[in-house]
Amino acid sequence: MNYEQLFEQIVKKKSFLCIGLDTDIKKIPQHLLKMKDPQFEFNKQIVDTTHHLAIAYKPNLAFYESEGSKGWASFEKTVKYIKENYPEIFVIADAKRGDIGNTSGLYARAFFENLPCDALTVAPYMGKDSVSPFLGYEGKWVILLALTSNEGAQDFQHFDNEEGIRLFEKIFAISQKWAGKDRMMYVVGATRANELTDIRKIVPNHFLLVPGVGAQGGSLEEVAKYGMNDSCGLIVNSSREIIYAGKGEDFAQVSRNVAIEKYQQPMEALLIQHGLL
Amino acid sequence: MNYEQLFEQIVKKKSFLCIGLDTDIKKIPQHLLKMKDPQFEFNKQIVDTTHHLAIAYKPNLAFYESEGSKGWASFEKTVKYIKENYPEIFVIADAKRGDIGNTSGLYARAFFENLPCDALTVAPYMGKDSVSPFLGYEGKWVILLALTSNEGAQDFQHFDNEEGIRLFEKIFAISQKWAGKDRMMYVVGATRANELTDIRKIVPNHFLLVPGVGAQGGSLEEVAKYGMNDSCGLIVNSSREIIYAGKGEDFAQVSRNVAIEKYQQPMEALLIQHGLL
Repeated sequence: MNYEQLFEQIVKKKSFLCIGLDTDIKKIPQHLLKMKDPQFEFNKQIVDTTHHLAIAYKPNLAFYESEGSKGWASFEKTVKYIKENYPEIFVIADAKRGDIGNTSGLYARAFFENLPCDALTVAPYMGKDSVSPFLGYEGKWVILLALTSNEGAQDFQHFDNEEGIRLFEKIFAISQKWAGKDRMMYVVGATRANELTDIRKIVPNHFLLVPGVGAQGGSLEEVAKYGMNDSCGLIVNSSREIIYAGKGEDFAQVSRNVAIEKYQQPMEALLIQHGLL
Repeated sequence: MNYEQLFEQIVKKKSFLCIGLDTDIKKIPQHLLKMKDPQFEFNKQIVDTTHHLAIAYKPNLAFYESEGSKGWASFEKTVKYIKENYPEIFVIADAKRGDIGNTSGLYARAFFENLPCDALTVAPYMGKDSVSPFLGYEGKWVILLALTSNEGAQDFQHFDNEEGIRLFEKIFAISQKWAGKDRMMYVVGATRANELTDIRKIVPNHFLLVPGVGAQGGSLEEVAKYGMNDSCGLIVNSSREIIYAGKGEDFAQVSRNVAIEKYQQPMEALLIQHGLL
């Protein structure tokens, strides 16, 4: 999927919502546990009821790996199900991978060749040759960790040099030489919305994947105020607040209602406010 | 496994070798492809012929994920096989994971609870709360990426502040507050052996996992010269040079010979030279 197609989806759906499929076997409704593949069944129902409200889904690999190879199979099944039934949806494997060049190439094989993922989150610490292998796929994206939404982001991401340039700013600056706005996005936590003004000076046109709205305390309005550009330029993720909203057999309908009220409708208003609808 | 037990193994085996199980289905001997689980079969034969020469094995997850859930099952089988048959062996899952706190907790569940891995490589970029969940397990270790062996290590790891402190040095300094030498190790690439003197000033006692000897050009002698401490303090990894040494049905014997001649024997000499045997 390319940059323009992504923006088209945003306009069509009046939404820039990504739903995080952080599907913890210990948190999903009890009645699903009787089924053969509870993680997949949960995801399928969430996707079937919310696909018209979201432009992207983001399964986080930790939740699947915690169930071992069985969980990996549920992840594979989820990705394939989404792309087969809703090919316009942007599927992000939130895996935060990154290794020396030839090894990153194998991760690329896993997510971009063997599976139809559209994007992969990648950790920047090991530098260019750890990221490049993911950039060689037409229509596939690297989403580089830049400024994350957790407390620990303070530990190293704000480390600054004598000119006051912080590590995360350095990462924006350097990585732009590796690929343009059609292959690269960045993770910027919503809990850092006040940093978005500075970030937009360095990457005015790139899409930003923004976690941390909702359960982690970030504000959708602030993110849009400081981060939205002419192509929206934002994919805002919500996980727990949406997917665990309901506990009963109607859990997916409850999730849909939360997705509409707390995300799609406010997003539509923000897109109108910014002249994009 | 604790710090003392690790050193005991080194003395007993006269070796500080870790063999990297970077088992690429496209590179293993042809005759194995007829078997039900070629990746596991390859690993089993390598481990069975080399376990007396190595103190650790390090399967890199990329090579298993590139085969999807089937590959993950081969990884699981490999880890369980090693710990069941050779419980004294230190098993490192080279996964370079790291996520926000509750999510890292799920990775910890995957590698430390559901599987008997002794250690996990972890990426430092997201800071303390992304690393802490792995530190709560008695006898289990975090191996934090500090200075990697690849070219891209130059991009960010050497970023320095106004006092000239580089990012990787900051990571050594800060992360020491999170856990001591009995729970934490660091990855330091052998291609950076000249940095080891500076690193040993910050972390004199911690074990260092050193990749990059052999195929990547690092020198075992230099690593020992600048990095060895009173408890050896080094686990030197070699992957491709050992595991892909042979191509035929006798591949594991060829690997064993390379492991002896290029690693175990020189390591024994270095341990003697440093007064540890």
